[in-house]
Amino acid sequence: MAEVRALVFDVFGTLVDWRSGIAAAAADFGLPGAEFADAWRARYVPSMNAVRRGELPWMNLDALQRRSLDDLLPEFGGAALDEAARRHLVLAWHRLPPWPDAAAGLGRLRKRYLLSPLSNGGFALLTNLARQAGLAFDCILSAELCRHYKPDREVYRMAAELLGLQPAEVMMVAAHKSDLRAAQAAGLQAAFVERPLEFGAGGGADRLPDPDSDLAAGDLLGLASQLSC
Amino acid sequence: MAEVRALVFDVFGTLVDWRSGIAAAAADFGLPGAEFADAWRARYVPSMNAVRRGELPWMNLDALQRRSLDDLLPEFGGAALDEAARRHLVLAWHRLPPWPDAAAGLGRLRKRYLLSPLSNGGFALLTNLARQAGLAFDCILSAELCRHYKPDREVYRMAAELLGLQPAEVMMVAAHKSDLRAAQAAGLQAAFVERPLEFGAGGGADRLPDPDSDLAAGDLLGLASQLSC
Repeated sequence: MAEVRALVFDVFGTLVDWRSGIAAAAADFGLPGAEFADAWRARYVPSMNAVRRGELPWMNLDALQRRSLDDLLPEFGGAALDEAARRHLVLAWHRLPPWPDAAAGLGRLRKRYLLSPLSNGGFALLTNLARQAGLAFDCILSAELCRHYKPDREVYRMAAELLGLQPAEVMMVAAHKSDLRAAQAAGLQAAFVERPLEFGAGGGADRLPDPDSDLAAGDLLGLASQLSC
Repeated sequence: MAEVRALVFDVFGTLVDWRSGIAAAAADFGLPGAEFADAWRARYVPSMNAVRRGELPWMNLDALQRRSLDDLLPEFGGAALDEAARRHLVLAWHRLPPWPDAAAGLGRLRKRYLLSPLSNGGFALLTNLARQAGLAFDCILSAELCRHYKPDREVYRMAAELLGLQPAEVMMVAAHKSDLRAAQAAGLQAAFVERPLEFGAGGGADRLPDPDSDLAAGDLLGLASQLSC
């Protein structure tokens, strides 16, 4: 097994609690918080798949979230929300709250490894999110840089290429087993981190164990300990 | 004048002392340190211009530096240097020493502004350099991400686009007036920082004043003070 040099992280769900953040932002506009967050999130993967299949031209996640938002607001009594409110809601994805262990876990892991997000979030989104959430990375890797969305192989290979590493020297860290399987198919190593509350209690998040991953942990502090950080 | 949101930095010469770093690395292999560093640096701009003019296909700076190194070694009695030595010398550009004020200056500026390099160095080079030199950025912007070299307009525009900002909300910080003029032509603001010893004593570095820039300072601490950081 190659020695791991860099850890790259899924962000939504793995490092930050998108559901609480979007629910709070939606509630500020009189929308039903968690219910609205879940409905918006439900459009996330289908919207990226439309780009992946070529049904939509490339657009970054802000643009996709805006399309989904505009579709969704009438269903939730929000048809009257103006342009400023809609922009504010899209930008709520740039300032999501981190899980409680995320900043400390990254701090420990960074002593030994190069760290980056590897997310379908746009470059500005990830940069802003890392800054406001206090998540210290060495660089920002976004799907936007190769104009492909995960789980397209191009995204994982781009990470290794831009870092000047072999794919096996890069370990993908995610709370989603499908992301990890795609990373492994592209030659990366994989670490599963459980986030049981990502979709709320009983929301069906992926759970431990994950025997197909190289490592699996209950949170980032546990992952740091397994990696002797 | 738009309010500046992000500062983007030239790296070689502006944040790090490439001449001392390369001279020391070259001396380790029995090459004449500063003389060799100057000769290698003299090939830097012409090698990028060959890509800019389409005479060479796109390749990142590591690849260009390797070509220049291979050309240059016989002139300096280094024809016998093996593959490992040549790779080590190319990677010396990934671990150059920062100017004494660089880390502290960035630390002050980062409290108020989003910070990134905007350099012709490759993505891995800049990521590794920032990490080892203790230069804290919010993200890494490399010419490699748009496959154009400065002063091509595409590089400066890419910075604003990826950060989700208007060009005028981005300020280029550099010790080279030509870089600043190109940034301004692309719509960015400009700050000149003097680095009188970049090319050694009497080496012909750009000097204060720079009346065409929006700001000009003797070092990054002076720039931070001017920006009330």
